[in-house]
Formats: sequence, C-alpha cells, structure tokens
Amino acid sequence: MQLQLKRRSSVPLYRQLAGELREQIVSGALAEGYRLPPERELAKRLEVNRTTVLQAYQQLKDEGLIASKVGKGTFVLPQPAPVVAQTIASQASQQPVPADVDFGQERSRSSVQVIRRMPPSNTAEPTVVRPPWSVLFSDYSNRFTYHDIAAANRAQNGKAVIDFATGSPNPADIPDDLLRAVSLEAFASHEFDGQPESPIEGFPELRELLAEHMRARGAHCNARDVMVLSGSEQGIDLCVRAFINPGDCVLVEQSTFFPALQAFRSADARIVGVPMDEYGMRTDLLEGYCARFHPKFIYTIPTFQNPTGSTMPAERRSELIDVARKYQCLVIEDDAYGELWYGPANRKADDNERPIPLKGMENGGYVIYLSTFSKTVTSGLRTGWIVADPHVIGRLAALRRMVDQHTSTSSQRICLELLKEGRIAEHVRTLTDTYRKRRDLTDRALRRHAPQGMHWNVPEGGYYIWATLPEGVRSLDVLDRCRAQGVTFMPGSVFDVDETDDSHIRLNIVHPDTADIERGIRMICESIAQAS
Amino acid sequence: MQLQLKRRSSVPLYRQLAGELREQIVSGALAEGYRLPPERELAKRLEVNRTTVLQAYQQLKDEGLIASKVGKGTFVLPQPAPVVAQTIASQASQQPVPADVDFGQERSRSSVQVIRRMPPSNTAEPTVVRPPWSVLFSDYSNRFTYHDIAAANRAQNGKAVIDFATGSPNPADIPDDLLRAVSLEAFASHEFDGQPESPIEGFPELRELLAEHMRARGAHCNARDVMVLSGSEQGIDLCVRAFINPGDCVLVEQSTFFPALQAFRSADARIVGVPMDEYGMRTDLLEGYCARFHPKFIYTIPTFQNPTGSTMPAERRSELIDVARKYQCLVIEDDAYGELWYGPANRKADDNERPIPLKGMENGGYVIYLSTFSKTVTSGLRTGWIVADPHVIGRLAALRRMVDQHTSTSSQRICLELLKEGRIAEHVRTLTDTYRKRRDLTDRALRRHAPQGMHWNVPEGGYYIWATLPEGVRSLDVLDRCRAQGVTFMPGSVFDVDETDDSHIRLNIVHPDTADIERGIRMICESIAQAS
Repeated sequence: MQLQLKRRSSVPLYRQLAGELREQIVSGALAEGYRLPPERELAKRLEVNRTTVLQAYQQLKDEGLIASKVGKGTFVLPQPAPVVAQTIASQASQQPVPADVDFGQERSRSSVQVIRRMPPSNTAEPTVVRPPWSVLFSDYSNRFTYHDIAAANRAQNGKAVIDFATGSPNPADIPDDLLRAVSLEAFASHEFDGQPESPIEGFPELRELLAEHMRARGAHCNARDVMVLSGSEQGIDLCVRAFINPGDCVLVEQSTFFPALQAFRSADARIVGVPMDEYGMRTDLLEGYCARFHPKFIYTIPTFQNPTGSTMPAERRSELIDVARKYQCLVIEDDAYGELWYGPANRKADDNERPIPLKGMENGGYVIYLSTFSKTVTSGLRTGWIVADPHVIGRLAALRRMVDQHTSTSSQRICLELLKEGRIAEHVRTLTDTYRKRRDLTDRALRRHAPQGMHWNVPEGGYYIWATLPEGVRSLDVLDRCRAQGVTFMPGSVFDVDETDDSHIRLNIVHPDTADIERGIRMICESIAQAS
Repeated sequence: MQLQLKRRSSVPLYRQLAGELREQIVSGALAEGYRLPPERELAKRLEVNRTTVLQAYQQLKDEGLIASKVGKGTFVLPQPAPVVAQTIASQASQQPVPADVDFGQERSRSSVQVIRRMPPSNTAEPTVVRPPWSVLFSDYSNRFTYHDIAAANRAQNGKAVIDFATGSPNPADIPDDLLRAVSLEAFASHEFDGQPESPIEGFPELRELLAEHMRARGAHCNARDVMVLSGSEQGIDLCVRAFINPGDCVLVEQSTFFPALQAFRSADARIVGVPMDEYGMRTDLLEGYCARFHPKFIYTIPTFQNPTGSTMPAERRSELIDVARKYQCLVIEDDAYGELWYGPANRKADDNERPIPLKGMENGGYVIYLSTFSKTVTSGLRTGWIVADPHVIGRLAALRRMVDQHTSTSSQRICLELLKEGRIAEHVRTLTDTYRKRRDLTDRALRRHAPQGMHWNVPEGGYYIWATLPEGVRSLDVLDRCRAQGVTFMPGSVFDVDETDDSHIRLNIVHPDTADIERGIRMICESIAQAS
C-alpha cells in the first residue's frame, strides 16, 4: 500500500489520506477483505498524529468503503460491481442494427479493432476502455467529504442499530395519514389544471400562506419577500452563489450544520468559527471578528441549534443584529428547527417564552431567513422557504433558473393544503408533546448512566442533545465501540469548522424509538466509561 | 445618466452596460417612466457598436425592467415597491413585548437611538438602514444574465401574445386528467408509509423502471447506473461541480441551451463552441478542437437540438464517441427532447428511423446521459434522470447532499405511476401526433409568408424551428417589432456561445395554440420583411 501525503497542502492530512485510500479501494487496488494497518501503526509509518488516521478511517467508514470488526481490525468492504462489460462489438452482435439505419459501422469497426489490438485478457469478457476518473473529477469534488450515515448503518451487516446519528425524525412520527389526506385533496382539485409550471418563486397562494405563517411567528413580511425552495439547504447554496466571491469570509458558529460548511467551501469562502457556549454564538466576541475578518455574511442557527441544541437569548439576538448593521454584513438565519419548541424541563412551558426569529427583530433587509417543512412534517417533500428583501429574492430566482427552476408543483400543492386550516400547527403540537417526553426520557437516562466528567445540555426544542465527554475520551474511539454494539451518534468533529473537535457527541433524541432510548443511552455511556 | 464601461474587462460590453443600467433602475436613480436614449445616440455617445446597446436593452427588457413603445422610445417600467419600512422602534410600539421575555431592550433602544440621531426625513416613515446590495452580491451574480420570457410577456401590459418564445409545451397539452389519475393512485397507496425520505439516488423502484425505459430506447443500463434528478438541468449543474476546475474547457454546439452555458460559466469554465450545420455538431472538426483545447467534456444535444432542431446522424454520433475516447474526455448527452420523435415531413415515419441515444452506442462510461419528464409530461414535476457509470453516480450523489438531497418523493411517486403500464408511452404517441401536425402547419405558413432570403429547418422531432433571417436583418430589430404586435420568439444571440449571433431566430412550434400559428408566423414574416 503506497501512500503519499503533502504536508504543505491546504488540504488537511486526514482528507488527503482518506482520498488516497478511497482511490485505491474504488480502483480495486485494495480488494474486498483487505485488512488496513492498525491506526497506531499507520500513524507511526506516516509520521502523523493518530487522530489523523482515525479521522480518515472514520470518513471511509461513513462512505461505506471500510468497516471495523472489534478485535480483528479494519477491512475493505465489497464494492459495487462494474457495469456489465460490453463493447459496441458485442452489443452489435446481440442486437442486429436495423438495415436502414446507418450506424457508422465503418467507424465502430475501427474502434473495435483498437480494442482487439490490446493484449488478450484472461476473462472471456471483451476489454472495455474506461475514462480516467481520478483526473477527470474536479479538485473540489476530489476533496469533498461526505458523511453517509445511512451507508454506515448498512455496513453493520443488517444488525439492528439504535440510531441517534441520523438528522431526520423517527419514521413513525411522519404523519402518513395526514399527508395522504391532504395529497388526495390536493390532486382531486382542478384548481391547478393548465398550470404546468410554477413561477420560480413558487405559487403565489403558497407564498401568501407562508408569509402569513411567518407573521404568526413574529416576522413581518409579505408574499413578495418569500420564495419557495426545494429544502432550506437550497437556500444556503443559492446565497453562496449570490454573495460569495472566492476568499470572502463567512462567520459561523464553531460547530454547525455540515452541509452549510460544504456549500461555503464549494465557493472557496474563508470560513471562520465564532466561539459558542451553552447559549449559542458568543455575540460579545462578534464585533472583534467582524472588524478583523469583514465577513460577507454571518450564518447562524440561533434556535435549537444543530448540533449543540443551544438557543440564543434575546439580548444576543439584538447584539448580533446591531453588529451586522454596523459592519454592513448580512445574517443568514437558518431556522430549520425553530418551530419545534417544547419548553424547559421541570416546569410547564409558557407560550411567551417561544423564541422569536431574528427576522422578526430586523426589517432593513440584513436578515435572510430560511426554514423548511423537513423537520415539522417530512423531508421527503423537499420544500422549504426563504424570506428576504425583494432584491435578494429577484437575484436568487435568476440564479435558480440554472439549478432546478422551481420547487416541484406536487410538493407545493401538498404544502399548500398542509398550511390551510392550521393543519401543520396541530401536527406540530402533537409532535412537540412527543419530543418533550423523549427529551425528558433521554435526560433521565443520561443522569442515570453518564460516567463522571460527562455533561450535556437540556434543549428546549429541536432534535439535539450535545454531550461533552470526560477529559481524555475521544469521540471516534467511543463511536467505534458503540457501532460494534449496535448504537450510533454523530461525533463532534463532523460539525466543527476546523474538524478537530473530538470531545463532543451529538445525539438526535427524536430519532430512536422511545422504547430504545434508555438502552441506547446506557450502551453509549458504558462505551464512554470503557474508553476512559 | 452616468455610464462607465471598461473596455479591457473580460465581461462583454453589453453586459457591463446592462449591469450599470440595471443598478440605476433598481436603486431608483432612473425612475419609472424615464426615457432611455435611443440606441444609435447612446452607441455614439459611448463609442460602442449599436448591437451592444441593442443587446443591453434587450437584456433589461427580458428582465422586465424596461420596455419599448414603437415610435416613442424605451422607458423604465415601474419597480416593485420597497418593503414596508418599519424599524424595531415602530414594531416595538405596535406589538408590546411580553413582560417575561427579555428582548435585549437595552440594546434595541441603543440601536433606535442611532436611527433617531440621523437627520429627520421628509416622510412620516422612520428611516431604515439598508444593506449595500451591489457590493454584497458576488461578482458572478452581478455578471449573471437572465432571460425571463414570462416577465417580458407580462411587460406587454396584458395584451395577448402569440408565444413562440417560451421553451415549454402548450398548457393545453399537459395531460391534466392523466396526472390527476396517477397522482390519486400514487397517494391512495400505503406503499410508501414510513418512508419519509428517498435515497439520494431516488426510489429503487423508480430507478429500475427508468433503466427499463432506457433499455427500450437502446441504451443498456441497470438501476444502479441511474439517478433520479430534480430536472435534467440539475444534472448539468452537478456535472459542473463534479468535473470542472476553473479554466477547464467545455466544448458545446455553437448554439445551445443557455442555462447550460450559465452553469459552465458559474464554474469559470472556458467554453468553446464547435461549428454546426443542419445535421448538428460538425464532428469532422471535433478532433482538432479536442487536440487544441483538451476539453473536460463535450456537452451536446444530439437529438432535436435546442435551439436548432437539428439531429446528428449515426455516423456523426460514432465519430463523436471515437474522438471522446481518443482524447479521454467525457460526453454529456442532453436528451431532453429525444423521445418526441415524429418523423420527416412529406412521408410516413418508419419506426426504425427513430434516433438512438449516444448512450446506447458506448458502454465504457464516456457518455453521461441526461433526460427529463419536462418535455414529455410536464416540467412542473421537476423530475429528470441521469445515466452514468456508478462511480459518477456515487460522486454526484455525494455532492447533491449539499444541494437538495433528493427529488421530491411526491414527484417520484407520480413518475413511478406514469412509467407503469406504458402510460407515458401512450401519452407521448398522442403528443407527437399533435406536434407533427403543428410542425407541418408552421412549415406551410413559413413557405407562404417567408420573405426572400429567409430559410429554416424542418425538424423531425422536438420543439424547435430555427430560421435564418435574410442578409442584413437583425433578430433584435425583428423582436422589437414583433413584441409591439403581440408575437414573440427567441433571438439566436441568447443561445450563442459568443452571444453575437444576430441572424437567427428560434420558434417553439409546439407552444402557441394551433389556431394562432398561421397568424403568428405571418406577423413574424411581415416584421422581418419590414426590417429588411
């Protein structure tokens, strides 16, 4: 196994290592079942930190390329078989070309001859010349990291997994009956006959209902300030295209939604993490960061943050807006979880405590607001929305022509029905009752099983508990032990701007079945204790 | 009106001019009703070609910012009103903050004071500080050109328009009843209960049916070679991210689908147009272009091309594949119109003449195939697909996590039903019968009314007739006359790699009502004659 790392490259060493190994696995140089060197050994050989090897292996596990067996080592998993090998020659012999179609036989024959002149292979299959993928792929896509939780779970060989890792709701919480009812209503209607397309910004009726929905949450806006998106992530991607020149700075919370980091990296933005505490972004430090880095925008998840579960109090929100105004930078408010408020533990929630979006506190256009139906209903509809100044909406709509034109009319029609007559609001009430119970259950389980030195937040809404591991315990070590036992979570490094955080774990407390929470938390806590 | 053009910039002069004027219109510096200088006068003043001014004005007309009145000049149209001006101060006074929520009043008050310290304005509305949009937008988005046909049509002040411009089907041809029936079937089913999301690549059943659909068209592939897309345009965008480094070359047909050009430009690709004739790309020249420019890929629409309506014969297809293999570059085959084959004029179509995709003639992975339901059913579903080597599918899926995750499950379920039991195939047969009639009708109308020196292709499928204007007649001149009369088309410059083609027009012959075709063509031909 040949490996070459460039120490002066701007690409982190672990990504270089993962990239080299990926290439060798995908090309078949490292075959199925190949045992990779133990982490310590490889780290010594390459003269790198052990964490570098750990992170690279983790990356490849997330991609479903390798897997560890406890006590046996780390192995290359089976890869998808190559395309059925068939040249034009073999195809032509199987499917006679209709007599009156000139298939350019002259030329096909010549390319077949080129193939035949190659040395005969051992198999009966004809040789197929393949494109040189690794040089054809862009540098950006070769560097791209990808955490495929589903593939990692599948790599458990079908063993049941208690899944605190996935960022989506428990399938049992998806309101299938409600969705069926509103879908049947939406499609029985003749209202949209002869409207084959939607305007880029979305159907006017839906934009109007979304504006009303936002006003009910405290943010003043009109239909023309709203654009329907194919998920709120698309809004991040569009804002990157609209605002970021290579080298522009983006400020983010030190731990944040990783597809947002990927989107910022895709445009060669300089990403700077602002420190956080249990109340989210440290806005007292923000002015210094703005003065030093002149950010184009500040990307923030102020409410029930992903991954930390933290919520910025009102004073911090005001401070953030003041600084953005003063330094003439925009604020992108990602409010994917904001509607899932269930209140504090230990006492009844008072509706007045419900956090109000930043967008509701600023009206000059500095705040660009994103939200989605993915967390309240289902991500399958791929429908979200953005609220921004009409200038911004116009610009994003122009850019979007090149991407997906508009959100699927079928999804828009379903969302339109969902927003009518308070149906979503009713569903969200049921959902947050359930989530509140799961939060309490998880918190109790953690109190019961957490080893000394571990601590965690108790969120007032959303999906996530963010736990700090005891001194010296590394999240990736714990993850390996947990996966072997059939329980998973997300390690903090995935969300960390600098990808070095190894002392936190993110638990999605709404994803596992309620009946599995106690057992899952016990298993995680035991693994932490063992790794201490 | 102050205008400054940079003659050494890589941005074409007409785009600089459009950008400067746009900025002044959007900012309000040029108010509603402002009469822009006549083209010749402005061209003289700026010392530029008259075409530069014509193109800039055309761009702004397409964006709905200005409009011409025949004999009266070109005027600034009314702009959307700014957001309702409201500061935190005025909001706070209208909506008392609940007593037990600390809203950071201390800080809000200080920001209100900042506002109050500003000089009093003449209006009663409080001053709102607004972001400096033009410096916040990215260079890329400031340069971005956008042809909004719908806005241009709306700018006709509600006058009925015979629309040969739009790239979509006639709303009356959308199979509303079929869509309603399959949608109701899809959503009555419990089959997808508890499947809140789709895999990134699409539902396995749909990928399987699409692979079958492709095999029926002569392209061998399996479900794992197929990814469901949110429209085929998304496939172009994903391929750009996956393959293009800044400065990489992309070869395209000299006149091509303009959102593809925009996608290539977004990644700073070097776009080189290969000359075309009535049989599409001149593949005899291709080897020279590959040797000279080392393209990363060749983007082609080989069948019923947009905008020229041309179809590459089988020999050219083979030659294209051979050159791509020899020069180790990929081919992106955009087959959006390929299923809409209705055969030659003047004789019955023989099913053996139906063009076979490039993907069916190559099996090593060099051809990446894109298609869509937008042209055969409706673009509202935003569903297309890509067929490629599993390596490519894997890479695109990883990148797509950052964009829209997967295609709307509701659209996928509808398409699944559409593909079952040959429903789409049946609809396409009806559709192509209608299109054949419209093609014949348009061709006859052109023969009757076309002025001397005008000629056009007679397509065997798809949407477009591509007409060459008589010597010296400029498409933008004709467009202005036509719009004034209530008929539109697309000028060739929009599709031209170098944006200089002013001698062609694209007619979408399937969009206008059948009853309007004769009259529309007569009006266009008369305008051409007048402009001669």
